[in-house]
Amino acid sequence: MAQKFNEMPAYGKLEQLAKSPYDLTAKEALTPERLERYRAEACGWRLLYGTERITDEVMAALEQLAAQSQALSWMARMQGGEVINRIEGFESEEREVLHTAMRDLFDNPRSEEPAKKAAAQARTEHEKLRKFLTQIGDRFTDIVQIGIGGSDLGPRAFYLALQAYAQEGRRAHFISNVDPDDATRVLRSIDPKRTLVVVVSKSGTTLETLTNETLARRYFEAHGVDPKDHFLAVTGEKSPMDDPKRYLASFYMWDYVGGRYSVTSMVGAVMLAFVLGHEEVLELLRGAHEMDRVACRPQLRGNLPLLGALLGIWNRNFLGYPTVAVLPYSQALERFPAHLQQCNMESNGKHIDRHGQPVTWATGPIVWGEPGTNGQHSFYQLIHQGTDIIPIELIGLCASQYEQDLEVQGTSSQEKLLANLLAQSVAFATGKSDRNPNKQFEGNRPNQLLMADRLTPHALGALMAYYEHKIAFQGFIWGINSFDQEGVQLGKVLAKQFTDQMIAQRTGAKSAPWPVGEALLNQLKL
Amino acid sequence: MAQKFNEMPAYGKLEQLAKSPYDLTAKEALTPERLERYRAEACGWRLLYGTERITDEVMAALEQLAAQSQALSWMARMQGGEVINRIEGFESEEREVLHTAMRDLFDNPRSEEPAKKAAAQARTEHEKLRKFLTQIGDRFTDIVQIGIGGSDLGPRAFYLALQAYAQEGRRAHFISNVDPDDATRVLRSIDPKRTLVVVVSKSGTTLETLTNETLARRYFEAHGVDPKDHFLAVTGEKSPMDDPKRYLASFYMWDYVGGRYSVTSMVGAVMLAFVLGHEEVLELLRGAHEMDRVACRPQLRGNLPLLGALLGIWNRNFLGYPTVAVLPYSQALERFPAHLQQCNMESNGKHIDRHGQPVTWATGPIVWGEPGTNGQHSFYQLIHQGTDIIPIELIGLCASQYEQDLEVQGTSSQEKLLANLLAQSVAFATGKSDRNPNKQFEGNRPNQLLMADRLTPHALGALMAYYEHKIAFQGFIWGINSFDQEGVQLGKVLAKQFTDQMIAQRTGAKSAPWPVGEALLNQLKL
Repeated sequence: MAQKFNEMPAYGKLEQLAKSPYDLTAKEALTPERLERYRAEACGWRLLYGTERITDEVMAALEQLAAQSQALSWMARMQGGEVINRIEGFESEEREVLHTAMRDLFDNPRSEEPAKKAAAQARTEHEKLRKFLTQIGDRFTDIVQIGIGGSDLGPRAFYLALQAYAQEGRRAHFISNVDPDDATRVLRSIDPKRTLVVVVSKSGTTLETLTNETLARRYFEAHGVDPKDHFLAVTGEKSPMDDPKRYLASFYMWDYVGGRYSVTSMVGAVMLAFVLGHEEVLELLRGAHEMDRVACRPQLRGNLPLLGALLGIWNRNFLGYPTVAVLPYSQALERFPAHLQQCNMESNGKHIDRHGQPVTWATGPIVWGEPGTNGQHSFYQLIHQGTDIIPIELIGLCASQYEQDLEVQGTSSQEKLLANLLAQSVAFATGKSDRNPNKQFEGNRPNQLLMADRLTPHALGALMAYYEHKIAFQGFIWGINSFDQEGVQLGKVLAKQFTDQMIAQRTGAKSAPWPVGEALLNQLKL
Repeated sequence: MAQKFNEMPAYGKLEQLAKSPYDLTAKEALTPERLERYRAEACGWRLLYGTERITDEVMAALEQLAAQSQALSWMARMQGGEVINRIEGFESEEREVLHTAMRDLFDNPRSEEPAKKAAAQARTEHEKLRKFLTQIGDRFTDIVQIGIGGSDLGPRAFYLALQAYAQEGRRAHFISNVDPDDATRVLRSIDPKRTLVVVVSKSGTTLETLTNETLARRYFEAHGVDPKDHFLAVTGEKSPMDDPKRYLASFYMWDYVGGRYSVTSMVGAVMLAFVLGHEEVLELLRGAHEMDRVACRPQLRGNLPLLGALLGIWNRNFLGYPTVAVLPYSQALERFPAHLQQCNMESNGKHIDRHGQPVTWATGPIVWGEPGTNGQHSFYQLIHQGTDIIPIELIGLCASQYEQDLEVQGTSSQEKLLANLLAQSVAFATGKSDRNPNKQFEGNRPNQLLMADRLTPHALGALMAYYEHKIAFQGFIWGINSFDQEGVQLGKVLAKQFTDQMIAQRTGAKSAPWPVGEALLNQLKL
């Protein structure tokens, strides 16, 4: 059995070092030399981490932790297609984890059989997609994506992030919530005659998604439009949704790609290729693929996701901070924190290790965030002067997407945006003394800056993969399985009990007595 | 000097009780009797808190805490218009806090002079607004709100929440971020000829807002439309924006209404009245006003905001949980958590008390959340099985807004939504044992359920005021000033330093040496 996280030699060393972390508020604590020393780069993204509470000693111990946990070997096993989604000794999903194969379509492909096979399957789907897009020509202007969780958050965040690259007149819309008002609001805003609907469910049985599909089909029919000429399925091969009688086309996804890692599969690609064009989607995939390769680099400084993972573990397990705020200074990334929230919290919100033993250390943090500068006028008050410390991940882009800008008071909007980004990084780190206690800033809010030139499809692909692998590395180091989600099951079972009870109440059928369930249902009476 | 939070007699009692909080996972811990016992109601909202880890003893001690901190007296002083936004002995804002006066237009008005005067000012603005809406008739279809922080988050959340009540063909759009792509994306989607723009800044000097206004004016001019026939100002009387030569109309706001509490002032009312009609806005205000009165009730059970505040303090200070997840089972409330995030974290993210002394207890928690059922397919994994406990506030509505629904597998979408809501409440509380450790749910995730019949303007107004007063009560009990935001200043000062440096670099002007600033600016070079 592998060594436990808190039994590795580096763990004890880091615990010692955490007793006196680097003081960013000290005079001359933040210098150009420090900024240069703690700077790494890959795929066009620069990570500036001199504003974290780290020293060379901390970094060396973190690197040992990575080695002792065999993080790189786990990454290779993952990308090669070993069955790593499992809990040893207990019933579990027993699957490969091959989202990286979905973009292994470029240089330096993996040579392991499972990875090669999955990449070939991905290539086949992209061929189908390319032909399909040619066939439909200009018949459609809009696309509605119906899905939930990974079939919604990633695709939605990416659509918003890349809207600036949309083909003239093409738009996407999203229906996810089982709340019927979600579907109604979206359906009322589109013209069914000119609209494609892509329904996404791996199993073909996701209740929210099937219910919303039914609402959408009904709406199309009511407007004299035959759904089978407008609806697409993204689903598992041979799932109940893989049915040419009901869909204009089907694109496949496989159980070796988890929902929260699926945006570079057909789950995101169909909608994005319709809106942006297929070439732009390939650029997105290329950026992700390049970062996939970076995640395999042996040197810590060159392996950006591993470096990010270790900095996160320093803040989480040794400095003891339970949350992380992701603050992109880019309105296009407005829903990127929601995507990361799923990817991170569903992956690493775990309480047992890979052997089924309860963990005795903190695992995945609470991830949240909103774009800057908006957040500055909202919750930054608490980050600067609250009673809890929140590690911060700032994301910035040097240039805007549309390049529609003008100077007001001597600087452009983009310059103001960047000035604020840098200002916050410094303010969080150094704080400020003042005789008025209400104007006192304690500083030592650990933060890091992730910068690229511009938010292109390529840069977004690399950013996404950076976070995916950062999360995977943290899971490897903590010794947990980041790829299942058993924690969602209990709610499903109980929801079924409640709907059964609702049906029983309506039909007068007998049901097992359930006093608490009935008491709660009584609260719903208007 | 008033007694400090952690020196009140009830504090010690609660510390004792917190050593063995009620175990929701025990057999028969959750019964219909318990649900009925811990249930309160006001303004159409029911609070079910039997799934919190409380007992009668805890509730009695919390009630003593409220009494010992004179929470009700502070609420009366606030609503009456005393100068409570201040730090004793130090330079501070020294203002009244009178957002409640903005809706004190109905039964039982406050009799104190400052409150009466503020309500009269609000009434005048509503008269202006009513006349303005009549004058413009059907000339406009769209409205763009330009503002940031409280001039954006609340209005945007409320627009999304009430879109179902919009007048035929009327839409709102929002520009907030200084990121120039935010303005570009929105401006490209509207027809300037048919669009009103409402620019919101109390001081008339908010840099993000003025910059975006300039971008918008330029865009209108480029499309042959004169901004002064389309632009409205919501600003302080006699601010630089109070200028009839540049705006079609001005509506006023006052410094006794903080940004995060301003949605029921003209900050929200102008845009909402244009979209929904003025009568619907008055319904929203009426709901808020009714909850304002509830917040003054002496009995804990009848005073919903005080009850909510105390339950939050139990979780925050005695059970020790640093975050709160707000999970509305309503897609219409998709941005309501972002509004609360500002309202709560900017108000109570404070590290000194009302006398300028550092606090030695936790103040405002980190507030985050997304709508259910979406979140179930995202971060709920961590809530159920992560290593940290997250208190949860569930919000539910018995009926949908549009009432466009249908049965799939025996239940409507709305029923499925509610079944999931109730299921999660039970699952969080009780957990579940299993021989497979990966299917084990530890339970004891404290949660509460806030339910109303339907999300009408009235219900939303009451919900908003519930949270506003809950936050205010927590601030009163912690002994902090919830109404300033000095923590945003340092970032502003440093951002100015960065823009000055940018200008100096460009113009070759001399500037004071700032090595770290220059090193960071060098990172921005493409």
